[in-house]
Amino acid sequence: MVPNPSTLLWGGRFTENMNDLMVTFNESLPFDMALHEADVRGSITFAKALRQLDLLTDEELSEITRGLEAVEKEWVDGKFVIHPAVDEDIHTANERRLAELIGPAIAGKLHTGRSRNEQIATDLRLWVRTQLDDISEQLRTALAVCAARAKAEIDVLMPGYTHFQRAQPVRFSHWLLSHATYLMGDVQRLHGVRERTNCCPLGVGALAGNPFGIDRTFLTRDLGFSSVHPNSLAAVADRDFVAEILQWSSLLMVHLSHLSRLSEDLIIYSTAEFGFIRVADEYSTGGSLMPQKKNPDSLELIRGKAGRVMGQASGFLSTLKSLPTAYNKDIQESVEPLLDCVKTVSRCLRIAAGVLSTLQINSKKMKAALTADMLATDVADYLVVKGVPFRQTHHIAGAVVRKAEEKGVSIAELELPDLKQISPQFEADIADVFDFERSVERRAAQGGTSRSSVLSQISAIEAYLAGI
Amino acid sequence: MVPNPSTLLWGGRFTENMNDLMVTFNESLPFDMALHEADVRGSITFAKALRQLDLLTDEELSEITRGLEAVEKEWVDGKFVIHPAVDEDIHTANERRLAELIGPAIAGKLHTGRSRNEQIATDLRLWVRTQLDDISEQLRTALAVCAARAKAEIDVLMPGYTHFQRAQPVRFSHWLLSHATYLMGDVQRLHGVRERTNCCPLGVGALAGNPFGIDRTFLTRDLGFSSVHPNSLAAVADRDFVAEILQWSSLLMVHLSHLSRLSEDLIIYSTAEFGFIRVADEYSTGGSLMPQKKNPDSLELIRGKAGRVMGQASGFLSTLKSLPTAYNKDIQESVEPLLDCVKTVSRCLRIAAGVLSTLQINSKKMKAALTADMLATDVADYLVVKGVPFRQTHHIAGAVVRKAEEKGVSIAELELPDLKQISPQFEADIADVFDFERSVERRAAQGGTSRSSVLSQISAIEAYLAGI
Amino acid sequence: MVPNPSTLLWGGRFTENMNDLMVTFNESLPFDMALHEADVRGSITFAKALRQLDLLTDEELSEITRGLEAVEKEWVDGKFVIHPAVDEDIHTANERRLAELIGPAIAGKLHTGRSRNEQIATDLRLWVRTQLDDISEQLRTALAVCAARAKAEIDVLMPGYTHFQRAQPVRFSHWLLSHATYLMGDVQRLHGVRERTNCCPLGVGALAGNPFGIDRTFLTRDLGFSSVHPNSLAAVADRDFVAEILQWSSLLMVHLSHLSRLSEDLIIYSTAEFGFIRVADEYSTGGSLMPQKKNPDSLELIRGKAGRVMGQASGFLSTLKSLPTAYNKDIQESVEPLLDCVKTVSRCLRIAAGVLSTLQINSKKMKAALTADMLATDVADYLVVKGVPFRQTHHIAGAVVRKAEEKGVSIAELELPDLKQISPQFEADIADVFDFERSVERRAAQGGTSRSSVLSQISAIEAYLAGI
Amino acid sequence: MVPNPSTLLWGGRFTENMNDLMVTFNESLPFDMALHEADVRGSITFAKALRQLDLLTDEELSEITRGLEAVEKEWVDGKFVIHPAVDEDIHTANERRLAELIGPAIAGKLHTGRSRNEQIATDLRLWVRTQLDDISEQLRTALAVCAARAKAEIDVLMPGYTHFQRAQPVRFSHWLLSHATYLMGDVQRLHGVRERTNCCPLGVGALAGNPFGIDRTFLTRDLGFSSVHPNSLAAVADRDFVAEILQWSSLLMVHLSHLSRLSEDLIIYSTAEFGFIRVADEYSTGGSLMPQKKNPDSLELIRGKAGRVMGQASGFLSTLKSLPTAYNKDIQESVEPLLDCVKTVSRCLRIAAGVLSTLQINSKKMKAALTADMLATDVADYLVVKGVPFRQTHHIAGAVVRKAEEKGVSIAELELPDLKQISPQFEADIADVFDFERSVERRAAQGGTSRSSVLSQISAIEAYLAGI
Repeated sequence: MVPNPSTLLWGGRFTENMNDLMVTFNESLPFDMALHEADVRGSITFAKALRQLDLLTDEELSEITRGLEAVEKEWVDGKFVIHPAVDEDIHTANERRLAELIGPAIAGKLHTGRSRNEQIATDLRLWVRTQLDDISEQLRTALAVCAARAKAEIDVLMPGYTHFQRAQPVRFSHWLLSHATYLMGDVQRLHGVRERTNCCPLGVGALAGNPFGIDRTFLTRDLGFSSVHPNSLAAVADRDFVAEILQWSSLLMVHLSHLSRLSEDLIIYSTAEFGFIRVADEYSTGGSLMPQKKNPDSLELIRGKAGRVMGQASGFLSTLKSLPTAYNKDIQESVEPLLDCVKTVSRCLRIAAGVLSTLQINSKKMKAALTADMLATDVADYLVVKGVPFRQTHHIAGAVVRKAEEKGVSIAELELPDLKQISPQFEADIADVFDFERSVERRAAQGGTSRSSVLSQISAIEAYLAGI
Repeated sequence: MVPNPSTLLWGGRFTENMNDLMVTFNESLPFDMALHEADVRGSITFAKALRQLDLLTDEELSEITRGLEAVEKEWVDGKFVIHPAVDEDIHTANERRLAELIGPAIAGKLHTGRSRNEQIATDLRLWVRTQLDDISEQLRTALAVCAARAKAEIDVLMPGYTHFQRAQPVRFSHWLLSHATYLMGDVQRLHGVRERTNCCPLGVGALAGNPFGIDRTFLTRDLGFSSVHPNSLAAVADRDFVAEILQWSSLLMVHLSHLSRLSEDLIIYSTAEFGFIRVADEYSTGGSLMPQKKNPDSLELIRGKAGRVMGQASGFLSTLKSLPTAYNKDIQESVEPLLDCVKTVSRCLRIAAGVLSTLQINSKKMKAALTADMLATDVADYLVVKGVPFRQTHHIAGAVVRKAEEKGVSIAELELPDLKQISPQFEADIADVFDFERSVERRAAQGGTSRSSVLSQISAIEAYLAGI
Repeated sequence: MVPNPSTLLWGGRFTENMNDLMVTFNESLPFDMALHEADVRGSITFAKALRQLDLLTDEELSEITRGLEAVEKEWVDGKFVIHPAVDEDIHTANERRLAELIGPAIAGKLHTGRSRNEQIATDLRLWVRTQLDDISEQLRTALAVCAARAKAEIDVLMPGYTHFQRAQPVRFSHWLLSHATYLMGDVQRLHGVRERTNCCPLGVGALAGNPFGIDRTFLTRDLGFSSVHPNSLAAVADRDFVAEILQWSSLLMVHLSHLSRLSEDLIIYSTAEFGFIRVADEYSTGGSLMPQKKNPDSLELIRGKAGRVMGQASGFLSTLKSLPTAYNKDIQESVEPLLDCVKTVSRCLRIAAGVLSTLQINSKKMKAALTADMLATDVADYLVVKGVPFRQTHHIAGAVVRKAEEKGVSIAELELPDLKQISPQFEADIADVFDFERSVERRAAQGGTSRSSVLSQISAIEAYLAGI
Repeated sequence: MVPNPSTLLWGGRFTENMNDLMVTFNESLPFDMALHEADVRGSITFAKALRQLDLLTDEELSEITRGLEAVEKEWVDGKFVIHPAVDEDIHTANERRLAELIGPAIAGKLHTGRSRNEQIATDLRLWVRTQLDDISEQLRTALAVCAARAKAEIDVLMPGYTHFQRAQPVRFSHWLLSHATYLMGDVQRLHGVRERTNCCPLGVGALAGNPFGIDRTFLTRDLGFSSVHPNSLAAVADRDFVAEILQWSSLLMVHLSHLSRLSEDLIIYSTAEFGFIRVADEYSTGGSLMPQKKNPDSLELIRGKAGRVMGQASGFLSTLKSLPTAYNKDIQESVEPLLDCVKTVSRCLRIAAGVLSTLQINSKKMKAALTADMLATDVADYLVVKGVPFRQTHHIAGAVVRKAEEKGVSIAELELPDLKQISPQFEADIADVFDFERSVERRAAQGGTSRSSVLSQISAIEAYLAGI
């Protein structure tokens, strides 16, 4: 059917129900009500600063403070009654309720020289600062789990993989600490992100600054911010902290995703019947059609959610990129991805730490998966010590692997004459090379697989956890 | 504080509250309950097919159908009582309720040979098919608005811009139709997307197919699908239709975003006091601090939401990319972006059509913005007709522009001797060139700005709207 | 060191070498010279249309055609001499050279009423159309490989996986065809993409249309386009076809990436020593340090390049999103991603088809990996046929799995009394269930794993390949 | 045509030319040759460490050093002859050439215990560190330009915009410094990125560590790295620094893109004839069809390239996300985006600084664009000082705006009686409010538009530039 244009244009039937849609489209309360506490806190601080300017009396400040605390209590108790189509966002909702509680005359003074532009910028930063601290705590927990397990299970050897193939023997602890290494990077990055987030935009007006000489240093200190945002035009529109948090989260989720993917790999490695590790029942679910299945859903969801967070980061940058100067409503699109990202990251970290702390490892299976061909590099190293140039040793070790394949035996089972035929430098002490524990211990340079090297990695994490 | 590892590992205090988190983390009912109707519909069809196989009796089929319809009625009436931690997803919720209503003995037969993997795949496709049809209808409305306004306001001239600078005069209708052209592309792409979405995965089991010989052609027809998904391993994991819808939506949102951005440009072009167009009050909001402002928030939100949808598309591809074969829980991450994307697109289309149909244009301001230098190309064209090679005419016209700048007049005000000094080919009829209407009419080849060309673009859109 | 601002501002030393940088920054010839043939072809067609308008004489047309062909020959022979800082793009390069060959008087007429905006739009579409046809051919080859192998190796059974765990037995052919299913979707999408790409923007001028009444239907036909771009303002800036190709490629690369990832999985499944499949030597490389390694680099590169293409798609949408109306230089950023994406996709398809056609499968290993617990669903199905409601059969089969675990045997080794203790419906014929071939054949509904179902999938692909 | 499967499978004609493609597909030399200097430098350091272990003699070390320096000289002089299909990457190319120069016996020892995995990781970090320092220098230049212009042109007033509409008067300096504020954030983030990039992976072997006890602290110091990468499994695969640089660049490009977009806006604001600012000729180009145009191509390219870099960031994260543990060839996909991103960012920064330092501002046009309705907020502020609650003043100021619209005058032209009718608090001193300079000076709180506030922003930037 062709819509009848005459009824569409210049008002008329087409736009009849549009008002409802526009209200819904514009309003942000359904999601920004998460910021209620930050909004109240920012308002109390702002009122104090107005008092300093004599724009409020002591009594007015006291009334406003009392009223705002009552509003916050209503939110906490789940008793705040939202007025649909009136309470457009958390700021108007709180202001409307405040006016009801203490009267419009006094409530109307709270926003003297303050715009919603600076208010939402302040609220978001206050709120997310708390979330970042929570996330930081969970990262520390995950690191503590890694360190503790790495220490407790340092004796367990397993194959190390590259190109998804068995390459050289490593300690299970070393594998675990490789993930901890990435998480340590996340921790370091998070410090910078939090520092830059913790910057105060309050007191900048709608775009041009505050006309009453408000004390922005006071606002900054009273809200626990560590710096004053330096430029009003920038301050109202600055969502770089959102972009940074989304980018930071993307990289963290890549790391958790690796942990998930790789844990899943370990579950089935070698044989499906047992595997190297077993995810605790509480993190698995059964199949709806296949009674024998125990699926590591938690790991898969973490992996799947990495894409979600990455999309939020890249999508928000696209939104940012197109922005005209100063505040534009596009910026409202920063709130939902931030709220969702922070929730996702926090949950995934908790789940990941839970999985890590409860998974059972099967050290026998791991050991059984070590095969002598993984020591080919050690054969080459053996020859280096005998003085053979490295590139030659590489070829010789390759020949050893091929010879073993021809004979249908492991390289450890080749006899000395066979080896000598390949290279005269082989001697009886080659037998010592075919020992996985020795191979692992030989890699004793910093960052290697030897016990001492692994312990020193653990110490570094423990020192970090103790130090802060 | 350093978390105490001894309490963290191998169960213990750390994981105490983990069960709640895992339940929340795993369950999809909070979002997939949107699929209730599709889920019920798919189950009724599946029951019919089980009847054909004598895996249900007539009475059992009748009971199941009656029960499922009652379940659906509860959803519609808002009376469905969710059992937290039990109703993991829409499928288990509906099955649990069905068993309560008709008893577990019969209800337990409904899922014979059916897995949740095929169920969610079917539900999503059924649900989103309806959404795509709604979106298609809204696209048609937007096109109808464009065609109607383009016809009604064909006499209005305005500057055409490239590099965000005035370039050549065009009709307002031509500008409007350039956007309609992009939307026509969206319409064409949507046909293909819908066709590929409308493919039936039901009857494939968890991964290997249905063991009872279920009639998949019947399932496909009964649910109004247009094709049978050909491979069970692929069918349970195939979320290409989600990727396609997200990609399609990304491009549509780019187009709506252009419309928004460009509309906003037109609002302020020339002078801030009036502008070329004015967005109707119902699509604008006032500033909280600046009483004189009327902000086109609706347009800015559309533009901001383009980033959101683009992020959902790229994020979901990242999730897809990492998937192992067949069904994995990562795939659950297809549901939320799809639900949100479809809602966003639908709203933005309605808002955009509303803005387009109600905006007022200021044809006087538009005309006043036409300046003679925009006819420099026409000067070159004039000389071409006089036989001057084009590349030369280009330089001559450039010289004319510079001469006018020197004299501080518009090129239309240059006297013939001045012009002749630049090129002897100028004659008295050059005066005819300096007419914006003639300039626009001169571009009469297909796709140009002439009245006939614009009318033929309108006819093409009208024909499309009438034809389907 | 603090840069000295006095030397920076308003010209001066700072911008001294800027001209070189600006030339480099602006010029697109280093990449758009790939379009030389398309550019020449478009110009010849345009000259013919000018002849129809008497803007060229027969002799001039003949000269221009001869000259352009000579220019093209220089490109093909690698003899075209680029004039740096003069040849800004392929259009100016070709025009400059043409003027040298046939003189500026005639060459200068070629661009009568034509802008570079329409030229680059035309060139890109012409060029990429050929590339899409090549890609389509390669997709067909990959499908042919899948169909041929699926037919030849239909007897090979292997475990089917979900959640990266052994789930139910399937045919190797069925696994291969699940990938072919996705590629068939790519083929279908490609048809639409090509159709929309094959639209002619030539003859629209810089933004407002052609003033000489050029015959755009002629231009369209002469260049083999299938439709006339309807709106000049849209035509010069329309890069939706680029966005579509990048999006299409993203999804294709996800599919190739799956094929890669999953192939790699199959290589190590079960045991590292042999695995299910073996990638041919020509697609593998050795390790630099580990002589025993044979790394499937080709597969990993395909997987890695999926991210590249996905990034090009999402990045280009971000570029598109921010565009002002009509032509802007930002659009130049469409060329490089398009060139690179098309090259990447084409190579990856060829490599993937090569790997697929040469990999060796180890059917013994595959068969050995089938374990009786994968038949738990068949046990449930057995009971369904005996009349037990499905949900009950699921629990009974679960109990069977647990009983087998307790006894440390496979479920196939449980004795009938054990089974009867769990459910009285078990009878001697349960033994027939424990047969992988029968299990696979039982799934005979469309899309299942039975021989007939697999053969019908193959037929569908063969029919498609034969039909076009 | 249907490809003939019999010729495709198991080798044969199909794969005939595959070897060439595989070589091309695998080799990275075409792009990683950019790392030649870093590769040579890393090798010299590694050789020194081998000497410490007595794995090289003094003479061998001396030969290797001499040889490597000769190799590097060949690269610098453009005389390095690449052996296609042999020189797979920069490491093999350099090693091959070294062996030719000093003989394979000694050259073959250089790679003792070293893998290409650690080599490429080291090379990339060394190379990009230099690039980051260059980019840092260019950021400093851009900041110096902003500070210098902001100081020199502090008297110039212009309209401040929100929602792309005139909102309140601001200083041009304040606008410029809002961009500098974002760039200062980029500078701070860059410090952290560089610090984390500057971490030494050399000495970790292929995945499990170095077996000869190499002194990694020495390697770290000798190459100027600031920390030792702590875990060998992580070190070979750690491309988080690439992700960080791409993410950092994305955000920087968003900022440059804003600068571009907004500069372009200023060009056309108010009137097309003059505009607020004028981009210097050297950063503009003419239109091919429209002689009167001067297009700010440089700005548009910067804006367009923001999408490119954002795509590289999101694409690379997708590649990272899918990686199995330790080194996989997918990681090779980190090199090209990194090389391209760094080049793009460096160029865009130079262009942006060039544009900023040369653009001419038209202070008269800017002043003329200030309209009295932009002082409506000041009217409200005036009433606040008179004791009216803010929310009321907002409504009164709104009424003033409407009254002026009704009368067809500016609000500054309303007579006192008119104002008093709206609110009795208006008095004669309201006239003082209608002064743009006073309005700007009134916003004297930190971050506001007053002269003192702007000067203190400038001082902060100057202090930063002087301090480092």
